[in-house]
Amino acid sequence: MKALDRLLRPRSVAVIGASADPGKLTARPVSYLLRHGYPGRILPVNPRGGEIAGLRCHPDIASLPEAPDAAIVLLEHDRAEEAVRALAARGTAAAIVLAGGYAEAGEEGIRRQRALVEAAGAMRLLGPNTIGLVNLTDRITLSASGALAMAELPAGAVSIVSQSGGVLGSLLSRAADRGVGLARLVSTGNEADLDSTDLVEHLIDDEATRVIALYMEGLRRPEAFRAAALRAAAAGKPVVVFKIGRSESGARSATSHTGALAGVDRVYDAFFRQCGIIRAETFADLLDIPAALVPGRRARGRRVAILTSSGGAGALVADSLGLAGFDLAPPDPATAARLAALRGEDPAEMRNPVDLTLAGLRPDLLRGALDALLDSPSYDATVVVVGSSAVAQPGLVADAVLERAAGGERPLICYISPHAPEVTRRLNGGGVPSFAAPESCAAVLAALQARPVPALPAAAPGPPGPLLASMGAGRLNEAQSEVLFEAFGIPVTREAVAPDPAGTLDAAEGLGARVVLKALSRDIPHKSDVGGVRVGLPAEELPAAAAAMLESLARAGAPPPEGFLVQEMVRGGIEMILGFHRDPQLGPVFLLGMGGVTAELIQDTVLRLPPLTREDAEGMIAGLRTAALLSGYRGVPPSDRAALADAILAFAALAAAAGERLLEAEINPLVVLPEGQGVRALDGLVVLAGPPPAPA
Amino acid sequence: MKALDRLLRPRSVAVIGASADPGKLTARPVSYLLRHGYPGRILPVNPRGGEIAGLRCHPDIASLPEAPDAAIVLLEHDRAEEAVRALAARGTAAAIVLAGGYAEAGEEGIRRQRALVEAAGAMRLLGPNTIGLVNLTDRITLSASGALAMAELPAGAVSIVSQSGGVLGSLLSRAADRGVGLARLVSTGNEADLDSTDLVEHLIDDEATRVIALYMEGLRRPEAFRAAALRAAAAGKPVVVFKIGRSESGARSATSHTGALAGVDRVYDAFFRQCGIIRAETFADLLDIPAALVPGRRARGRRVAILTSSGGAGALVADSLGLAGFDLAPPDPATAARLAALRGEDPAEMRNPVDLTLAGLRPDLLRGALDALLDSPSYDATVVVVGSSAVAQPGLVADAVLERAAGGERPLICYISPHAPEVTRRLNGGGVPSFAAPESCAAVLAALQARPVPALPAAAPGPPGPLLASMGAGRLNEAQSEVLFEAFGIPVTREAVAPDPAGTLDAAEGLGARVVLKALSRDIPHKSDVGGVRVGLPAEELPAAAAAMLESLARAGAPPPEGFLVQEMVRGGIEMILGFHRDPQLGPVFLLGMGGVTAELIQDTVLRLPPLTREDAEGMIAGLRTAALLSGYRGVPPSDRAALADAILAFAALAAAAGERLLEAEINPLVVLPEGQGVRALDGLVVLAGPPPAPA
Repeated sequence: MKALDRLLRPRSVAVIGASADPGKLTARPVSYLLRHGYPGRILPVNPRGGEIAGLRCHPDIASLPEAPDAAIVLLEHDRAEEAVRALAARGTAAAIVLAGGYAEAGEEGIRRQRALVEAAGAMRLLGPNTIGLVNLTDRITLSASGALAMAELPAGAVSIVSQSGGVLGSLLSRAADRGVGLARLVSTGNEADLDSTDLVEHLIDDEATRVIALYMEGLRRPEAFRAAALRAAAAGKPVVVFKIGRSESGARSATSHTGALAGVDRVYDAFFRQCGIIRAETFADLLDIPAALVPGRRARGRRVAILTSSGGAGALVADSLGLAGFDLAPPDPATAARLAALRGEDPAEMRNPVDLTLAGLRPDLLRGALDALLDSPSYDATVVVVGSSAVAQPGLVADAVLERAAGGERPLICYISPHAPEVTRRLNGGGVPSFAAPESCAAVLAALQARPVPALPAAAPGPPGPLLASMGAGRLNEAQSEVLFEAFGIPVTREAVAPDPAGTLDAAEGLGARVVLKALSRDIPHKSDVGGVRVGLPAEELPAAAAAMLESLARAGAPPPEGFLVQEMVRGGIEMILGFHRDPQLGPVFLLGMGGVTAELIQDTVLRLPPLTREDAEGMIAGLRTAALLSGYRGVPPSDRAALADAILAFAALAAAAGERLLEAEINPLVVLPEGQGVRALDGLVVLAGPPPAPA
Repeated sequence: MKALDRLLRPRSVAVIGASADPGKLTARPVSYLLRHGYPGRILPVNPRGGEIAGLRCHPDIASLPEAPDAAIVLLEHDRAEEAVRALAARGTAAAIVLAGGYAEAGEEGIRRQRALVEAAGAMRLLGPNTIGLVNLTDRITLSASGALAMAELPAGAVSIVSQSGGVLGSLLSRAADRGVGLARLVSTGNEADLDSTDLVEHLIDDEATRVIALYMEGLRRPEAFRAAALRAAAAGKPVVVFKIGRSESGARSATSHTGALAGVDRVYDAFFRQCGIIRAETFADLLDIPAALVPGRRARGRRVAILTSSGGAGALVADSLGLAGFDLAPPDPATAARLAALRGEDPAEMRNPVDLTLAGLRPDLLRGALDALLDSPSYDATVVVVGSSAVAQPGLVADAVLERAAGGERPLICYISPHAPEVTRRLNGGGVPSFAAPESCAAVLAALQARPVPALPAAAPGPPGPLLASMGAGRLNEAQSEVLFEAFGIPVTREAVAPDPAGTLDAAEGLGARVVLKALSRDIPHKSDVGGVRVGLPAEELPAAAAAMLESLARAGAPPPEGFLVQEMVRGGIEMILGFHRDPQLGPVFLLGMGGVTAELIQDTVLRLPPLTREDAEGMIAGLRTAALLSGYRGVPPSDRAALADAILAFAALAAAAGERLLEAEINPLVVLPEGQGVRALDGLVVLAGPPPAPA
């Protein structure tokens, strides 16, 4: 039996530092184990000996009658390490350390945590700084969470992994109140050993778990997590994540726009999407969405029928769904005829929401109307709105819904308009996900949309090639960067470098009647802001313009340029930005954005993590808020989207070939010309780390 | 005593159609009146006579022993009219009609409702299609809402007006569950007589009411409502509105962009803001925000301190607040020193959230830390996070918070991390608004920001002037429109009209070396889409270009133009749109938007209702998402914002002068030139109704 199995389903549990004083936190675990019916052996350890709740208390770990499967250590950090060492020596499979004062508490704590891990040796460790775990399927509570004081904790199919113990307690008690059944709940705390990814991996193979909910503060092993998430998706176990850190500012880079435009949270957003993970937008979603996913029904589209026993509440739900982009079309003729026949009404008068209050709330009507909607081919999901009558008569609507819910294939959920906890528990407990917020209904129905199973495409790095191998560390200038882009198949502007103003005339040879003059420099970030760019110059004016540019740069305090770049003029097209940077937490990220100041102000960008497929590249383009600009809009001809996708893939190939050496890259602007005319990289930068040392 | 006073606080109530059968809805009102302790006289009326719950039942209205202050009519619509007539004849002050089947149910229902109003005569009418009203302050329940089956309904200072009875029941039961005290609750239903505005007007002068919450489906009298809302603001009684209809599409206009860009809901948004109303974004906000406003404390800024008894939940709240733009700076040195002294810590280590779990949850520490934060000059509001320990020990944190809450002036709210209804009720009941969603904390703190009291500026219409008076009904062409704009002080491009291609040469006289040629037409909406606009033409090419334009228009199926407009070229500047249209529900609306396709795709527009002050005009400019473009951005010079504000006010003066005659007007584009160079109207349209008939 694996250590994680023994931790989550221990046949025996040692409680180190258990107290007999019910006022103390250290008294809770034994009390909770007994209260919630733990079927295994409880082994309290306390040097004072005696009894705790009728159980014999062992004076120390060495004198325990057996090696426990799991141990929960309630000692403060000054004594926890010793206990962990002793537990490991006894052959305990895994220990939970509740104490804080470790890596979350500065230098000294980090040192302490390292010592704790060392003391654990081969024994697995949950925590420290955790509230422990709860296995409701098997009535096992290895936790001191005050939430376990609740009398009823229904078991079910949602498992929760939380980096915060307080949040675990919050979810546990809220789920119990609503009758949402949970399976395993684990607070991973500081993740000195076992982390969220370990738990997700475990839960994928856990029979009791159908949906995994994660409360995340940070992610230690993004690649392993991604692999686990993709395996969960393939196994048909949805993963729902609520992640904080949403207002952290992006990684700023002195050289490129990409990092600043990307932002920490938006990288996570892209990451989760590529992992096939559903991201909870509100904290309530973290419980609501998993609860709705448990029955396993998915909607094939956004057409929703609402059946209501309260006209006003039905309108409220309809409004929230409409705002979220759901289609609330009236019933098709056949369904309308069935609904109308129930009450002798005119089929032409049938609306959506279907309002049952008009004829008084009769259970037979409710059943008939529900059948008509569940059978209708025009709807992908049904929402039943439970009105205030449920306060006095909890069974009135709920019983009919529960009776009809069993057979269907499409999602059926309830909105509970009044505060009616009994009805909510009855419905949730009976397999009909039920919610108290109209916005939750919208969030849940969005999450219930059927979606393709994501997979990690094979990365095709290819050899770095002699060009990359020849390049040293540091920032390439614009001309060097463009050579690299071109080598990987990205069309660049025709251009030539001049070492000084006099040389610009020769450099303009063959570039057309009017050209662009730029200061060539790896040290001037926004050249146009300091007079380092001139557009539309006739060749003969170049030497004078270049000389003037030197003066302008000097006046602005910019460093002297390395030379001048003379480029052909590219007319028309749509300016975009294509970038690559390394997120400090999640690693390599690509960014595609609309260019121009307006797009910059509204941050119209899309992010994706490698590897990129053509589908990803096309998805990035389509994901821009102003993507319509590329499709021919208001007389502007349609842009060469295919060439743009090619360029994104070429850029990704460059990144794959450069591997760890590529720190940052950006094409800005990348001009997308009308259909059939391709794209042009007009400016860019690349920052490389040093080449790997030659093999000895 | 006014009729509304008698309705809300009746000394006697007739219940028409009361039933003795407890299973029937018609049995509820008498039962609820007794259950919740109605102190007045209950007069059940039923032709069967007998007794209901020990009360003598009167056979008909005529035989009632007194004229009741109020009556609640439980009869179906086929008998309600007769009862209303009889009640009016007896001198009843106001009647509540619960039945549906009136204006909400088609033509026949509209006729029926008209007859009902007629039958009521001078008696006031609430409904029909209402669930009635509840006055918790005085224990008066004139309603059949199933939510009244709840045992405990705490009285308080929030009054609710709802157009939906079901939603009223929802709010009533949810408030009771959380211990949020309510004063008066009125469901206005079909508003055949008394409407939301009447109720708001009444509640402004109601002593028991400190905050007014409105659930709105539509608004019948926007001007009266606006006056009432402004009076409420002046009286210091906040009004919070949740309005559905949010996904309705905008009023489409064949001629201008303005209507489509405005959108029904965005006009309401502007309307509410100008009324000084707080709009609830989620349904939960409709209860949460009023509850938070009751204590009357306001925040002077966005600096928030969080004190937490759960590290994880504190981080969660901090994240939600950070996302909403709140400032969670660490404590100032003096406050940090006080906090650190409590536990012998290093002041430099003090963070925000202030986490009390590190040293165990001790009430004395909690009190000390709370005092330090409440006294700190660095924070505008405080959030206390109540952790899972509250499930087992409801008093642990709550008592300390309630004790310290009494004295302060700044907002103090709680986030309740676990499901802990007792704690929530205790805190809410004790005057500390408490919430179960981190997002509610953010919404509530935003609503608690101190804000200026809005007032309706005096409209200065001015005389319509001879120019407007001379204009007939219908759509003006571009040239006529610009004459009108210029007459009101809006700078327009220099231009001249040519009747035919040959005349364009003369028309270009004095307009510069290159000009703009446009087809002059009131019937071609998007001229550039059909080849009706040419830019940068030398004068000598105009006749040929005009002839070609005629062909192009004909090919595109456009109607023949009235002639040609030759305009000077305006170079540079930022293109905007300035519009006026009549919203079908709320009337005249101004719109300012960024021009260009990107801005159009993202709908970067701001709306305001007249009258406009200079502050409004400046607020419109500042309210654009890409307003930074006007302030000098990335080398673009700062725009003439003052001239833009002048133009907005001139446009508003035109609208005021035209009064009811102005149906639609739009300047598109309005080019805003660099500072000191003003603005230019480059194109526009005006649609006028016919002049009022001359006085006889």
